Amino acid sequence: MNFLNEVAIRHPHAISFAAGRPIDEHFDAADVHRWLDVYLKHEGIPASALFQYGPTKGIIAEPVARHLRADEGIEIDPAAVLVTVGAQEAIHLVLRALRRDDRDAVLAVAPTYVGFTGAALTMDLPVFDVRDGDDGIDLDDLAETVRRVRHLGLRPRACYVMPDFANPSGRSMDVPVRHRLLEAAAEHDLLLIEDNPYGFFGPRRPSLKALDHDRRVIYVGTFAKTVLPGARVGYVVADQRVHAADGSVSLFADELAKLKSVVTVNTSPLAQAVIGGRLIEADHRLREANAGPAAEYRRNLDRMLAGLERRFSEPRFGGRVTWTAPEGGFFLVVDVPCVVDDDLLELAARDYGVLFTPMSYFLRGGRAVSQLRLSFSRILPEEMETGLDRLAALVADRQLP
Amino acid sequence: MNFLNEVAIRHPHAISFAAGRPIDEHFDAADVHRWLDVYLKHEGIPASALFQYGPTKGIIAEPVARHLRADEGIEIDPAAVLVTVGAQEAIHLVLRALRRDDRDAVLAVAPTYVGFTGAALTMDLPVFDVRDGDDGIDLDDLAETVRRVRHLGLRPRACYVMPDFANPSGRSMDVPVRHRLLEAAAEHDLLLIEDNPYGFFGPRRPSLKALDHDRRVIYVGTFAKTVLPGARVGYVVADQRVHAADGSVSLFADELAKLKSVVTVNTSPLAQAVIGGRLIEADHRLREANAGPAAEYRRNLDRMLAGLERRFSEPRFGGRVTWTAPEGGFFLVVDVPCVVDDDLLELAARDYGVLFTPMSYFLRGGRAVSQLRLSFSRILPEEMETGLDRLAALVADRQLP
Repeated sequence: MNFLNEVAIRHPHAISFAAGRPIDEHFDAADVHRWLDVYLKHEGIPASALFQYGPTKGIIAEPVARHLRADEGIEIDPAAVLVTVGAQEAIHLVLRALRRDDRDAVLAVAPTYVGFTGAALTMDLPVFDVRDGDDGIDLDDLAETVRRVRHLGLRPRACYVMPDFANPSGRSMDVPVRHRLLEAAAEHDLLLIEDNPYGFFGPRRPSLKALDHDRRVIYVGTFAKTVLPGARVGYVVADQRVHAADGSVSLFADELAKLKSVVTVNTSPLAQAVIGGRLIEADHRLREANAGPAAEYRRNLDRMLAGLERRFSEPRFGGRVTWTAPEGGFFLVVDVPCVVDDDLLELAARDYGVLFTPMSYFLRGGRAVSQLRLSFSRILPEEMETGLDRLAALVADRQLP
Repeated sequence: MNFLNEVAIRHPHAISFAAGRPIDEHFDAADVHRWLDVYLKHEGIPASALFQYGPTKGIIAEPVARHLRADEGIEIDPAAVLVTVGAQEAIHLVLRALRRDDRDAVLAVAPTYVGFTGAALTMDLPVFDVRDGDDGIDLDDLAETVRRVRHLGLRPRACYVMPDFANPSGRSMDVPVRHRLLEAAAEHDLLLIEDNPYGFFGPRRPSLKALDHDRRVIYVGTFAKTVLPGARVGYVVADQRVHAADGSVSLFADELAKLKSVVTVNTSPLAQAVIGGRLIEADHRLREANAGPAAEYRRNLDRMLAGLERRFSEPRFGGRVTWTAPEGGFFLVVDVPCVVDDDLLELAARDYGVLFTPMSYFLRGGRAVSQLRLSFSRILPEEMETGLDRLAALVADRQLP
């Protein structure tokens, strides 16, 4: 990712299909001021309360729990919610808590969001791939991987999944697969880490956490895509019971909070209040509040699929360029008849004026493959058309015979 | 610290000398709105720029560097500044980067800020104590500890110090000691991690970083005490050169940024803009801007010292209660003729209505000692007098013969 960032800085005029950013034209500084005031008025507290340190677990667990009930059908005690500095800190804390010693390991559906594997890497926690397949997760491969990990003398603690419009694949799990995954997790005594940044941007399906009656699922959420990234507010729902050596029982969220106290102490109460005000103003219904952006992402996705079809169905590609057709989200993946590595990315930016994310970034060991990820979340129609023209020209010039 | 928090919640009417919070009566929501606007206007950027993700290293390195020049005499390239979620994330990242494998270790002047030892503990990084003594650091003990750590087959990477009005001891290092510490660090090939949350609240001395001509000092700063804690914005100055295996050279700040990208991605641009606006409004001179609060902390410290003297010079204590007399900061330490453990804290809160921090919290292994830390930063005069009366009653009742 660092190389991608460097290339983007060196070639600022290249059209970017790389960054997975939300739309921001509608953002206004007045929103931030108003949401702050809405929060303070609703809670009946003085502004100075936001200016001090706050509790490690955060101050908006209650509105977050209401939002989860209204939008996701997840019934959760606010005590099981830990507010974090974005979903990334939630993932970091969960991995740190799951790693007790060097016999612990985690699984992840591959290709995998780099923030997950990156965090695991910094704490020497091994990650084992599970194939995604057409279902979003290959349950046979999950079972096989669990067996393999145990055979190595390791303890598979959890499997990381993004059931809705996954980053980077765009794939989703249908409802029967979700039920079977929960059953498999129980059978293998695995936790599931459900990361759901894109769930509002496509057809609605119940989240794993909404279907979870067994406290199997640790649910990671973020307001980066549904309110604004710049607040850096996310959360984790962790209602698992933790039994201490002295016989006492606590919630996993409280164990995570202890770790958080030595990572960031607490999440900015100011930033939390901005998000809290937005939740209150929207009556905790962010799906409805995001209907406009969701429709825009959908139009972009349709335009992208049509644009790919129009260009890559040309005879010169010989049907060798294919792509995933997600139902929503921010991303899709294109298979191209050439190796997609940093050299190709540099060439694409410099000579063709287009940027994308090599899929190698989402694969173990970073081995180069002939796939790239395209983001369509924040790109104007004319930019998208020009960008796809450039991509087609690149692939036409570089395709292997 | 968790037990202290629980006791405080169970006894909300107890007078607290426990929390080290800045004064907040002067905070107003209008300040936050104005600082945001000042920042946007000064930078000439649209508000939407704050609403997106931002660069991992942050957006206010330039005003932070100007502030360090104006207030601390530290000349630093903004490229060596990484903006973090409070000083805590800076400490966390520095420790994580220094720990390459299980042969690495760090040193810390004891008693030590719990955020440092707590962070080291979560990453299995051993911490070795260095005595503070009257100088704020015992340099003979530093040399002896380095020898001992090396003899154990470990690599002492850095020593953590708080040269100005340390938490919890209140002690400061005078200027000759600072010079000798820098020489000792060079001699032992140690880095120094200088944490400076309280430097503006007492007589000014040059920071170690201002005296450092050898890139020995990693400087950790925070705006929690000088602007507002609720923004959760701190930073680290890390201008050390890191030589990679491929011969390339980078700044340590960039290595820390890579780690940050999988911990919190970046620090809230919104929160950074609030701090940035404050810095711009104050012409980057926070020492001047904090003259009012600094005078208030000084009055509180004088009142505290007089109040301790008045009560504990009574014959019934037989001269057995003593205390440190810091020149500034938020804290001092009292020696009492009884063991200060969680039981005493519970009793103090319940039966006497007073809270403090047992010094055992700042010591390795948490062994109970006959010392407690008192914070005087945010307490009204009448509360302080009543609180000290209660503390004197507790000690009188509990003192050992």
